[in-house]
Amino acid sequence: MRIVDQKLEKVMHRKNLDAILFWGLENIRYLSGFTGSDGALIYTREGQIFLSDSRYTQQAQNETKNSDRHQYKQKLPGVAKALRSIRCRKIGFEANALTFESYRVLREKLTRVSWVPLSSELAGLRAVKDPEEIKKLGHAVQIASASFAKTLPQVKPGAQERKVAEFLECQFRKRGGDKPAFDTIVASGFRAALPHGAASPKRLQGGETVVIDFGTRFQGYHSDETKTLVIGKPDAKTKKIYEIVHRAQAKAMQTIRPGISVRQIDAAAREVIHKAGFGKYFGHGTGHGVGLAVHEDPAISPHGKGLVEEGMVFTVEPGIYMPGWGGVRIEDMVRVTANGCELLTYLPKALKDNII
Amino acid sequence: MRIVDQKLEKVMHRKNLDAILFWGLENIRYLSGFTGSDGALIYTREGQIFLSDSRYTQQAQNETKNSDRHQYKQKLPGVAKALRSIRCRKIGFEANALTFESYRVLREKLTRVSWVPLSSELAGLRAVKDPEEIKKLGHAVQIASASFAKTLPQVKPGAQERKVAEFLECQFRKRGGDKPAFDTIVASGFRAALPHGAASPKRLQGGETVVIDFGTRFQGYHSDETKTLVIGKPDAKTKKIYEIVHRAQAKAMQTIRPGISVRQIDAAAREVIHKAGFGKYFGHGTGHGVGLAVHEDPAISPHGKGLVEEGMVFTVEPGIYMPGWGGVRIEDMVRVTANGCELLTYLPKALKDNII
Repeated sequence: MRIVDQKLEKVMHRKNLDAILFWGLENIRYLSGFTGSDGALIYTREGQIFLSDSRYTQQAQNETKNSDRHQYKQKLPGVAKALRSIRCRKIGFEANALTFESYRVLREKLTRVSWVPLSSELAGLRAVKDPEEIKKLGHAVQIASASFAKTLPQVKPGAQERKVAEFLECQFRKRGGDKPAFDTIVASGFRAALPHGAASPKRLQGGETVVIDFGTRFQGYHSDETKTLVIGKPDAKTKKIYEIVHRAQAKAMQTIRPGISVRQIDAAAREVIHKAGFGKYFGHGTGHGVGLAVHEDPAISPHGKGLVEEGMVFTVEPGIYMPGWGGVRIEDMVRVTANGCELLTYLPKALKDNII
Repeated sequence: MRIVDQKLEKVMHRKNLDAILFWGLENIRYLSGFTGSDGALIYTREGQIFLSDSRYTQQAQNETKNSDRHQYKQKLPGVAKALRSIRCRKIGFEANALTFESYRVLREKLTRVSWVPLSSELAGLRAVKDPEEIKKLGHAVQIASASFAKTLPQVKPGAQERKVAEFLECQFRKRGGDKPAFDTIVASGFRAALPHGAASPKRLQGGETVVIDFGTRFQGYHSDETKTLVIGKPDAKTKKIYEIVHRAQAKAMQTIRPGISVRQIDAAAREVIHKAGFGKYFGHGTGHGVGLAVHEDPAISPHGKGLVEEGMVFTVEPGIYMPGWGGVRIEDMVRVTANGCELLTYLPKALKDNII
């Protein structure tokens, strides 16, 4: 029995369910191995059924494991028919993936069924990674790091942010990355104050900081990392802010071990930045899980829930963003070990190693 | 008043709504101009409110038009607070974008509100494109076409499917495409029977057909096009199937004009393939709208709804897929004109122009 089966068995037992309907592609892939972009999965005690349309019939045959396979012409009627055929009375569903409209249509088609939204019950289903997953994550990191190293000579005064991003993304591809994990962020100078500043036509200038947040995907698994580079000699303010962010990241990492709450990790980073007087310039959470989705459980934030477990993989990425001035973010991916954590990303993050 | 305001005014009037809550990024971008990857929009008769968190505050200031702006710390509580502050009683929401869980939380927070799911009411909101949008779509097509032309010499016996896809995607980037519109499909030989066969390590061989389905994004707008190439002299079966698909596409295009139903267009293509005896090998719809989303309304399929209007942009992409043998798909994008349609894509689709 897979660990995920044990987790799902508990949910089904507690909620007295006949089946769980999965709708999100990441969970479907996790449970069945299917890598396509449309489908559904019905999970029961007797086994799981993978459903898709004719575009994916052959692919599903090649890829899906541990699953019966159904083909439908239209998704919602097809899923309803399959649920009817196995006589489910009480069905849990992935409430964070199913849209209200799909829920409404299914409910209309299966009026005798009792529908149970599952949200927190499925949180963290994929959070603990097995060795095979760690290997894929590590490979994604490796592709991204080698690509970054190759791109570094392009980061110089006069270069356009978007050209840097383009170069980097082509490198991912050349090294076997499936695709960028997200729109690459290259935000320089005043634009670095935008935590999500997608690469623009702006040109880099001497003296600026450049936040580069990048990642790729390998066999479905993502990498996510941020370097903040300084072009030329950093001034006093840049130095100061960089060191605060770097210290905040180190402090957060030192707290990580199985059993600690995600909020404590976030608080550790936040406290360093707050005490230094920059609390209001750190608006986002400290990190997030990374796996088949680039953002997944656990959320390492003031509102995050639960405790850290060995084998979880998440980012640690505090930042300071000052409108009009710019910003600094430092992001690594860590894996939780038996008594601490280890880095999955390995590009150096000390200021001296990021001056170009 | 924008045309979209007239459409939304009608929906609000018919359903007696105080506001519509938009959750999908494409509609949010369409209404406000915001290009980031998280946010919400409350639409009222008095104006619209764009909401996001601190990661996007500056970006929202730069990008959003016609909108008040709110910043929240957590999305659902923030949206609920904003809805409460404008005293909405009856709120329509984008039921195809809001997940059941987000709906559940909002409903819990605003117990006095009556919630109205909107689905068909918002269908086709973006389907008719204005000249500015057509320009962007045309530019995306241009980038993709030039990239394809540059990639063509790579399509030869011995080349790996995924290397062809990588080369093509790097070309998009070099020419100013934001990103690929979707995972590029390069499916050769027997793999061409997979309508969604993502590029694999398989190597191309002489005599095979190669289905390449590709597109890029420019300023948010997508292109989507499929070429089926034949490496070397096509055999009789390949010739026959290619010609059937090509005829089906032409037939569908000939039917397009304002006022015709989307099902009639689908039926026109389907009939050609069915009459030729290959009906069961054409499992998907004939086309789909393209714009801020690469798949959007209208759906040109046996289950599609509604009539075609001038200014709509959609794909026409019949195909024949035979497990064990391979497949052929031919896809173009068209714009509906006053009395017919015109091609937005311009790479040649006749068999003689696709033998390499």
